[in-house]
This record gives sequence, C-alpha cells and structure tokens, in this order.
Amino acid sequence: MSYPNVNTLWAETLVEELVAGGVEAVCVSPGSRSTPLTVACAEHTDLRVYSHLDERSSAFFALGRAKRTGEPTPLVCTSGTAAANFHPAVIEASQSGVPMLVLTADRPPELTDSGANQTIDQEKLYGDAVRWYRDMPEPAAEPRKVRMLRTTVARALANSTGSDPGPVHLNCRFRKPLEPTPVPDDHPEGVPENWAGGDPLAAEGRDGPFVTTAQGAGRLDDADLSRVVSPVEAADRGLVVAGPADGGLGSDALGALADATGFPVLADPLSNLRSGSHVADHPVLGGYDAYLGTDAVADWPDPDVVLRFGASPTSKPLRQYLRDADCRQFVVAPSGRWTEATFTASDLLVADPDETARDIAERVAEPGDPAWADRFRRADQTHWDTVTDALDGAYWEGGVLADVTRLAPDPATLFVSNSMPVRDLDRFGEPRTADHTVLGNRGASGIDGITSTALGAGSATEDPLVLVTGDLAYYHDMNGLLALARCGVDATIVLVDNDGGGIFHMLPIEDHETFESQFKTPHGLDFEPTGELYGLAFERLESREAFVDAFERSAGSGGTQVLSVAFDAADSHARRDALQDRLVDAF
Amino acid sequence: MSYPNVNTLWAETLVEELVAGGVEAVCVSPGSRSTPLTVACAEHTDLRVYSHLDERSSAFFALGRAKRTGEPTPLVCTSGTAAANFHPAVIEASQSGVPMLVLTADRPPELTDSGANQTIDQEKLYGDAVRWYRDMPEPAAEPRKVRMLRTTVARALANSTGSDPGPVHLNCRFRKPLEPTPVPDDHPEGVPENWAGGDPLAAEGRDGPFVTTAQGAGRLDDADLSRVVSPVEAADRGLVVAGPADGGLGSDALGALADATGFPVLADPLSNLRSGSHVADHPVLGGYDAYLGTDAVADWPDPDVVLRFGASPTSKPLRQYLRDADCRQFVVAPSGRWTEATFTASDLLVADPDETARDIAERVAEPGDPAWADRFRRADQTHWDTVTDALDGAYWEGGVLADVTRLAPDPATLFVSNSMPVRDLDRFGEPRTADHTVLGNRGASGIDGITSTALGAGSATEDPLVLVTGDLAYYHDMNGLLALARCGVDATIVLVDNDGGGIFHMLPIEDHETFESQFKTPHGLDFEPTGELYGLAFERLESREAFVDAFERSAGSGGTQVLSVAFDAADSHARRDALQDRLVDAF
Repeated sequence: MSYPNVNTLWAETLVEELVAGGVEAVCVSPGSRSTPLTVACAEHTDLRVYSHLDERSSAFFALGRAKRTGEPTPLVCTSGTAAANFHPAVIEASQSGVPMLVLTADRPPELTDSGANQTIDQEKLYGDAVRWYRDMPEPAAEPRKVRMLRTTVARALANSTGSDPGPVHLNCRFRKPLEPTPVPDDHPEGVPENWAGGDPLAAEGRDGPFVTTAQGAGRLDDADLSRVVSPVEAADRGLVVAGPADGGLGSDALGALADATGFPVLADPLSNLRSGSHVADHPVLGGYDAYLGTDAVADWPDPDVVLRFGASPTSKPLRQYLRDADCRQFVVAPSGRWTEATFTASDLLVADPDETARDIAERVAEPGDPAWADRFRRADQTHWDTVTDALDGAYWEGGVLADVTRLAPDPATLFVSNSMPVRDLDRFGEPRTADHTVLGNRGASGIDGITSTALGAGSATEDPLVLVTGDLAYYHDMNGLLALARCGVDATIVLVDNDGGGIFHMLPIEDHETFESQFKTPHGLDFEPTGELYGLAFERLESREAFVDAFERSAGSGGTQVLSVAFDAADSHARRDALQDRLVDAF
Repeated sequence: MSYPNVNTLWAETLVEELVAGGVEAVCVSPGSRSTPLTVACAEHTDLRVYSHLDERSSAFFALGRAKRTGEPTPLVCTSGTAAANFHPAVIEASQSGVPMLVLTADRPPELTDSGANQTIDQEKLYGDAVRWYRDMPEPAAEPRKVRMLRTTVARALANSTGSDPGPVHLNCRFRKPLEPTPVPDDHPEGVPENWAGGDPLAAEGRDGPFVTTAQGAGRLDDADLSRVVSPVEAADRGLVVAGPADGGLGSDALGALADATGFPVLADPLSNLRSGSHVADHPVLGGYDAYLGTDAVADWPDPDVVLRFGASPTSKPLRQYLRDADCRQFVVAPSGRWTEATFTASDLLVADPDETARDIAERVAEPGDPAWADRFRRADQTHWDTVTDALDGAYWEGGVLADVTRLAPDPATLFVSNSMPVRDLDRFGEPRTADHTVLGNRGASGIDGITSTALGAGSATEDPLVLVTGDLAYYHDMNGLLALARCGVDATIVLVDNDGGGIFHMLPIEDHETFESQFKTPHGLDFEPTGELYGLAFERLESREAFVDAFERSAGSGGTQVLSVAFDAADSHARRDALQDRLVDAF
C-alpha cells in the first residue's frame, strides 16, 4: 500500500483500527491541524462522519451516541481552544461512565511553548477526568511505531469501555504537509513503498482489530456471595434500589432478583428499568419521590437490607430515606467507584451487576415479608392514582412529564434535561411496559450540552427521539440544534419555558432580594426564531389538550418540532406541593 | 459587623477585597453552590454585576473586558461542568497574557469523589493554563483564616496582573446553608458577634486592599543595554516589529525609538500601534503582509538588526521574512515567555517594553540609513495606493476591512475575529491617526468566544464598538449575543458570511475531494432570525455603497446592528491574489 506522506499513513492506519475495533461513526469539527484525521475519516467507506461546527456540542453529541450504543463515538478536533471546548462533555462522560475517545490534533513537539499560532499546552488537558491519556509519537513510516499505533488505538477503545468506562484522550501531533500531498519518499515525511520491510503486520494489520481485549466481568466468589445472601435471606424488609445507570443492571437479572427476594424495586427514571416489558411481570416502583419522607410513611418500619445498583438516585427523599436506614446496604459498582454521598453503604461489591443479581437470586431460598412489599406497592398505586386524577383539566410542568411518559411512542428514546425535567420525570413518570430508553446527563448534572446529547442518542437508532428540556438548557446548547439538519436527526423537543431558573424556587434563595436578578435571571428570550434559524417547526401549546394533540402528531411524524409550553415556575412548585398534600391525605 | 453565617462572612469579605483591589465589575452565572459569592457580588454597591447564562460566553466577556481595561473582571460560576465551560477563555487569557480571576464554587471536601450531585474534581481544573491556583480553605469565622482570605484575594489580583499577566483560579468551597440564612452562632456554620476577638484587621480589613503589591518593572542594566545598543547603532538597516500585544509597547516609547533609530516600524494590526495620533509624526507601516516575500522586494538587502515587541506577528510573510533574516533579533518580553516560533531571535530581553524602548532610544546617537526606511515607506505607500484604487467599484471581503478601518468612529474599539478578518485587517487596514483600540484573540487564535470577547471589551468604555466576524465565529458564539440586552452593550457587528470556513481556501486541502464536506462545511444558516431572537437590527448589504452607508449610520447610532455581507470565499481569495499582482506590477 502506498501513501502520499507519513501523516496519511498514520491517520489512515489509526482510522482503520477504529473501524476494526467496531467504531461506526465519528464526530469531526473542521480545522486545519486535524486534516490528516479528518480526511482519513471522511474517506473510510465504513464510517459515518458527523460534522459539527461547535466542538462543545460535538462532544456532547458523541456522549449521547455512546450513551445509547454503549460504544464510543470518537471525537476529532483541531489544535488550540477547540480541544478545551470538549472539556464539559469529557467530564460528564467521566462522571457517568460513558465511553468516549478524544482525538485532538496538535502541533509537532518543537512548537510547544514557542508562541506558534494556535498552539497551546494540550498535555493532560482534561486532567484526571480521562481514564487514559497518551501523547502520541510523531507519525513515522516505521514498522514498530505503526504497530504501536495500532495497539494504542485498540487499547484506547478497550480502556474507554470495559468495567470502568469513560473518556480516553489521544493527543495526535502532525507536521506539514497536513493534506494528502505527495512527498518524495526519501524525505523524512515521505513513505517509501517498502517502508514496512518484512513486517506485513505493521503494514496491513490483522483481519479485525490489531489487539482484541477480553474484559472479564467481575464475579464474586462463594464466600463473598454468602456474606451478601445471609442478610438478604434473613431480611423481612429489603429494598432493591436501581439508580441512574449507563449500562447497569438489565431487566432480566432485575426480574430474577425481585422474584427471589420479593423486595420492592425502587427504580430511578434513568435506571432504564422503569419501563420495558419486564414491568408487566415484576412491578417496579417510581412514586417514592412523592411519599418517602412524608407523614404518610412516618410509621413504617425501617428496611433490614438494601441492594443498590447504579449511581446515587435522583430523588432527594429517597437518598435521605436510605441515609436514615441503619442497615446493611450493598452497593454494586463494577467500576469500583464510590457512588453514595451519604456514606451509608456498608458493603461495596465491585462486580458485574447482572451476574451479581443472578448469583444472589439463585442462592436466596425464601423471599421477604410480602406485607412490606405491599406497603410500597399500595403507596405507589395511591400516588399514581392521585397523579392521574390531578392531570384532568390541569396543565402544568409535572403534568407535561406525566403525559410525555404516557404518550411517548413505543419504542422511543426519551432524554430529559437536568434541573426540573428529570425531577418531574422521577415523580410523575409512571412505569410502563413500553420499550423506552430513558437518558439524562446525571454524571455532573450540568445544564450544558443537553440538546446535543439528546440528538447524539437519537442518531444511534431509528427509535423516535423525545427531548424534554428547560429554557436555560435550551438556550445554553442552542448551537446543538444545528445537528438536526447536519446530522439528519429528527426529534420532538418539549421546551418547558419558565423564563429563567425555575429550580431556584425550590431553594431558600427564593426569599432573598437578589433572587430575581441573579438566580431566576429571566432572559425574556422568545425562542420562536430558532425555528426559522434551524429549520424546525416551533409551536406554542397553551392547553393540555393542545399539547397532547401536538405531542402525538409530532411523535408520529418526521422532522423536528419544538413544542413550547410556558409555565410560571412558582405556580408549578405550588402544584407539586399541593399534589403531595393530596397524596398524604389519600393514604 | 454581624453575619448570618460563615459563608456570608467569607463571601462578603472576599468581594470586599476584590473591590478594595480595584475590581469594578464581575461576571456571574446563575447556580446554587455559588450562592454566597453571587449574593455578595450583587449586594456590593460599588460592583457592576454582568449576569451570563452560558459560562463559556461569560468567560470570554470577562476576557474582553480585561483586554480593554488591563484589569481582571472576576468570574463566578457554580460547581460542576459550569467551570469547565470557562476553559477555552482561560487558555486564551493565558496565551495572550490577559488578567483573569476565576472563582469556581465547589462542594465541601467530604463530598469529593463521593458520587454527590454536581460534584466533579475541580482541583487544578485548568492545569498549567493558570498562573496561580488555590483550593481555598473552608469558610470559617477565625481571624487567621479570614486574614488569609484577604491576603489571598489581594495576591490573586496581583498575580493575574504584574509582569506576566494571566488567569488565576481560586476554588471556593461552601457547605449549606448557601443563602444568607441565619445560623445560631454556637453552630459550626454560625458567626458569633465577637468572632474576631481582638483582631479588627481580620474583621474589618484595611482602608484599601489588605495587601498592596508593588510590581517592579523589569529594567535592563547598562551592560545589558549596551549589548543591545551596539548592534542597533552599528546597523544601517534595522527594523522595529510590533506584534499583537495586550498591554505592550506604548506609542510614546515607540515614537522615541523610531526617532532615535530611524528604523521602519512594522506594526501588527493588534499591536495597537497602527492607529493613534502618533501615526502623524512617526509613520507606522502596515502593508508589509502584501509585499514582503514577493518579487517586488526580492532584491532588497537583508536587515542588520531587528527589535521585536509583542507576540509573533499575524502576518505569515512577515514571519517568514524575519525567519530568513540572519541578524541579531532582540525580543522584548516582560513575561519572559518565548514568542517566536521560527527560533530566529538571538536575544531575549525580559524587561518592560516602554522602559526598554526609551532606554535604547536615549543611547542611540545616530539613526540608520534613511534610504532603507524609504524603501519600506515607498512600498507601503504603493500598497495603500493600490488598495485605495481597487476599492472603487469593488465589493469584497478585503475591501470591507479597508472600509471599516477607514470609517470607524474616532474613538472606537475595533474587535476582529480570527481566521480571515484579522488577516484582511492586517493587509487592508491602513494606519490612521484615529484613537482606535484594536483587539483580537490571538493567544490561541480560536474562533470561539469572539462575540463575547468583543462585547466584554465594548462594555468597558463609552467608545463605540465595532466587531468584524465571520459566519463560523458568529455561529460558534451566538449565545454571546444575549449580552447585548443583558449587559447593556451596543455594537456594530460586521458579519462576513461566506457560508463556511473561508480560510480553508488558502490551504492545499482546497483541491481535495473532502474539501466541501469536511473543511469548507457550508452550514446554510440564515442568520437573520438572530435579529429577532436577540433584539438587534439585521441588515444585508449587497453593494459597497449600501455597506458604507449602513456602517456609518450604525456607528453613529445606538443599539446593535448586524451588517451582513455575503461573499464567495474563493472569489475573495482570487481578489487578494490579483491585488497583490497589481501591487508587484506597480513597483
């Protein structure tokens, strides 16, 4: 194989190994220094290239795609501040354990710290937020270096997935010519025809990835398992808590565990266990955010044991309930990372969630007290009845999330923003048997990059995409809307617009004089022109009937529709409180 | 003085020292963890608070304001990815040596790495891009700690300015209650009335900053100076090159140096020396980008000595000319940083530019050969005559920059984007006696944050603000337009829209099949709706007459007008080339 220059050899080999390693798509931002990578990506026939002009949005798009597929969507950018724009999404990927592979182009080493144009210090740019960092050697037509390149790409993919998935950063230095311009093969940048000499492995790689990594799933031995099973079997009152998870506990394993133990399953909306066909056979509970911590459950006995999966739950009442439960609490975390900030857990199980759930289920001979499970199921049912009843004739933020959950197509990808939407989904999104993949950015819980993450997730499948976002998040990542046309993604975007930071109404600052100017910060933006700007349909819905009608139309059609629903945030909080009072009364 | 809790004490003291240290404005983004800082800023009567919803834009706004004032505009954000959104501007501030003070709110130390919500690792988040980093101790009502706080704020301000200005990062941890909620004074978070005991300095600080830093300007001694003066005096053909500078050489010192040496002065458009009243007495040259490196100057002798100030020049022909000039080249860099990536300089003078220029001027007894200076002046004049001649009846990118320079009000702040606008300004912006402050982001030369940096600069004075930007930069920082209304800035924005990356036409990739899809990347965006979105007037100008008329109207009025001029990038490059050919013919 002949190459016009050493950059072409290097970049094509790199991309070849990406594809051999299972990569199907990359996110590329235009730039000069990254030309070798960009050209190699664009020319590879088995690779989909998503072109993004704003690197911040690009990185969130790649994050979303990886959340949906479980595989990294590599990112390519030029040198300089472009790479720093990836930083927010890199942190989110790190915190939520989502595969990501960042390929930053860089100047050759002699230009570091020289005042050369668009040259910054990219070494360890993302600090400890990446699982692995390599400053790549300079491209060279030398067999050992090319083998190293192939091996490094395979390792980068493996390190970004595995038992502790997250971002990996390869800093790729290139010297001119950056284009596939022929350079004489006796020049240092040239590639002689026989460069690989007697090393066809270096030149051609293998049939498949150059290095295949088999990652063993953490599996507890019998002694460790019996330390879990004993208190589980002894417990009358146990709980299974499934927190937000990117690639966590599967529904089959959950079903086995729930059947064997008889424990109620409290499923976070982002656990991806609140919806799916398993819900028909193994009821999962989602109403706890409303009743835990209220007078309604004040006289309930404490649980004896808790089995926790995934990250810390979104629900603050649930977190506080668990904090106050003085019992054995097992946290299953395959990454070995600590995910429990009340420091209540007593046992950390660094093991595969599915295998662990099944291993426990197999060994538990007798389920817990059915009366305990019934308490939870009845409380949940009372909650959902109250919510459904309150939906009639009412039009408000919480109701919108209830309607979205109820009406979203089957299957669908449902993405919810941080701040209020995820909290409302937690409280008002009733479990369904529909095949919903429910996603959010709960690693660092930022309101940045929400639209892009959602569109990235939507790009990964043919499932309809529904995004519920607030006005601050919609504004923050408005640039992300460009991906609708550029990356061919359709979406139904429910924009809950309360002109500023609705969440601050939940905090004591609401009563302070700086509330309006510095926290609520109304912006007065009318988002309708974004329809014209990004070629989407923009509609304002002013009644529940109109919203339901528009939502069903949008979910059943192509293109992108922004359904703007405007509510007064203070009124919404009053309704949440009133609903909770009704629930407590109903007990 | 009494405080409701330790956070209030801590944040009010911090802000008090900021103001005592000369800070007049802060950029604050809404968030919960940063509440103590936000409230303290908002309540301080001598502080202007600019509220920004997108932290990325906020940081660039602060950067621009600091570029214009020379003083930092502190940044406040909440914990999590919010802080990572500052990263691009932090890097630009570091690279261009602009004061910046980043105050990130963070969770208390016990929540680090615990899975707590919105908690990331903020330690040294910006790596080596900051001049100084401190993880602040937790707020406490203890005299020594409060003295430390006062001292640290004063040091942070001093470290962000001084001889090597740049960003400083203080990570500020707060524990609830974050609001100014009263806490009993016998509680760890409470503040007893007598907390300072006998230490009024801790409690009240000083009249003025707690610590005043006197930063000595680097001044060369006689021995060092004579090593500079000897070759300067011996030279027939010397050059003064003034590169982009944030706070570099002043016009008086430049005038003294030019008079004493008789050397031609080649002034980068971002040196802030190409315009001003000094231009009448000490001609500065700005046409070199067009004629250096052409046949027109092929038979010129080489220079004997070069005195360089500021960063590496924007002009590639000038950089290459200097690279090929084998002579003593002195680089004056008060920061001691290296700013010359061709590695041609022979002497680094770590000293104050003004003092150094004056010290040299005083010691030079005889100026260089006037014929040498005349060569440059004639070449420059021929260039400007050619440009002026070519302006008539033509409407194209370069002409727009020529017109903007010619027509901008006096005084004015003129901000130019990277990519083509700064290059066109370099080549077509004729020196004027007008009081123009010309700014750009040439530290890392990104196209991110351009609008925000410009608006930040515009916020600092009453001078009319003119921004010339491209469509990619305009898109990238569209969120920055929110500052027009929110921060009360007016601007004339000249939007040179060639639907994608015009600069790539200058690179060999233009001939490659991936050019259109991956480099030029046309987006097809019609930016007119941004007018409605952000409350600005949007106008398309399709002839030079219409543009000139609209520009003069806009510059003379309030509000913000986007003057959109659409050109074909390939055609613009052809015109640049044709103009250069005409110039060479005219010699």
